[in-house]
Amino acid sequence: MARSPSGESVLTRVDRVLSCFDADNTTRTVSEIARHAGLPIATAHRLVNELVSLGYLERTPGRRIRLGVRLWELASRGSRALGLREAARPVMEDLHAVVGHHTQLAVRDGLEALFLERLSTRGGSRNIIRVAGRLPAHACSSGIVLLAHAPVDVQEQLLASTHPRFTDRTPTDPTTLRRLLADTRRRGVVVADGYITVGATGVAVPIWGPRDDVVAALNVVVPSDEGNAPAQISALLAASRSISRALGANPRLDADLTSMPT
Amino acid sequence: MARSPSGESVLTRVDRVLSCFDADNTTRTVSEIARHAGLPIATAHRLVNELVSLGYLERTPGRRIRLGVRLWELASRGSRALGLREAARPVMEDLHAVVGHHTQLAVRDGLEALFLERLSTRGGSRNIIRVAGRLPAHACSSGIVLLAHAPVDVQEQLLASTHPRFTDRTPTDPTTLRRLLADTRRRGVVVADGYITVGATGVAVPIWGPRDDVVAALNVVVPSDEGNAPAQISALLAASRSISRALGANPRLDADLTSMPT
Repeated sequence: MARSPSGESVLTRVDRVLSCFDADNTTRTVSEIARHAGLPIATAHRLVNELVSLGYLERTPGRRIRLGVRLWELASRGSRALGLREAARPVMEDLHAVVGHHTQLAVRDGLEALFLERLSTRGGSRNIIRVAGRLPAHACSSGIVLLAHAPVDVQEQLLASTHPRFTDRTPTDPTTLRRLLADTRRRGVVVADGYITVGATGVAVPIWGPRDDVVAALNVVVPSDEGNAPAQISALLAASRSISRALGANPRLDADLTSMPT
Repeated sequence: MARSPSGESVLTRVDRVLSCFDADNTTRTVSEIARHAGLPIATAHRLVNELVSLGYLERTPGRRIRLGVRLWELASRGSRALGLREAARPVMEDLHAVVGHHTQLAVRDGLEALFLERLSTRGGSRNIIRVAGRLPAHACSSGIVLLAHAPVDVQEQLLASTHPRFTDRTPTDPTTLRRLLADTRRRGVVVADGYITVGATGVAVPIWGPRDDVVAALNVVVPSDEGNAPAQISALLAASRSISRALGANPRLDADLTSMPT
């Protein structure tokens, strides 16, 4: 792979350029890109020009730079995100109507949960997620479900790492995490009370794919003080079965409902 | 920009690797990627490994390669495609329910129309579009609308190029195209009968953005023999106003309805 004098690959730099853009900064000048990506201005100009010529970036009428539709086009053609979202969306709408709280779909990327979809509730409990947002997987209910069904090497990486603590309840030590993952696998559901925000409880279940693997997690976020988290479990499990079936999975009943807190 | 011994840039090769994937080929082996991208197998391995480490590609449990969720994440955070789709989707559903024919949203990318959304009709007229599909802009109604409002340099490029002819009615010569673009600007709508498929008529109108620029085109495809294309125009114009307003544009009435074919 071609590398710059600093030893960095071209693609690493390109990734830093593309990462300059987010929902709050949909357009940038080349100088801003250079500053945010930590690149010399001449290098930023060269990279931006080539990315524009390939359609990965675009110039706006005001000569600012934004992400190009080519990224969306590629993602739409083949990434697992789109198929999952399309399969989940109608079921999530029904679930959201019944549960009346934030309803979310996430996939695992490394040790993070990446949120593909979020149906929000005005005036619901506090929720720090947005679509295409990420959270450390150990600190949210969807992440715990995804880690519980992750390959062994990912779990080992999790247990060997140190993790940020968001509240007193955030699980961070290896013993707690190991038990939490085992419980989540056994029960088919996790109830995460205040892991990331005091007063908000996440309840998450796995979504199964056609190869009998967990491909996503579905969760709701409810206010902890209503004590109504367990009441959401059956609706979540039913929704998970619908989405899993739409993805070609064999229906299964994963949760041992008798072992749930009531 | 770093270049291979053949003089090609790394990014050009990366684009060819990413372009190997589409809706019919969501996973590939590295050998397939090498063949489709025209790369030596060792080069393909190196590029795939780095793209996997950055999240642009992923390995499936079966050790095949697919597009990574990072592409979707970037596109969701900043590309114009997502905002447009979200603003347009509910209005398009209403339009589709009323019109009862294929209803589509497109943006221009160079001299092509890229379709961001498509609501389909079972048993409707023939329609060769799919989501994230492309058509030459001169040969479809959405493309004509987008070209009619494109910057002068794009129009000049269009008029100086040769274009594929799909039917006897496909507009390809500069004189015809120039008149068609002027008519489309003046009328605010284009009725494209059989430009790309005999028997299918596209009817398209512009979608306006907050800076008084055309950011997309909305179109329906109806069977030509029903002679009902003009009947769709008012519904399309109303839908376009709703979507444009949702995008922050000032409402306007672009079509000179009295000059429409009836």
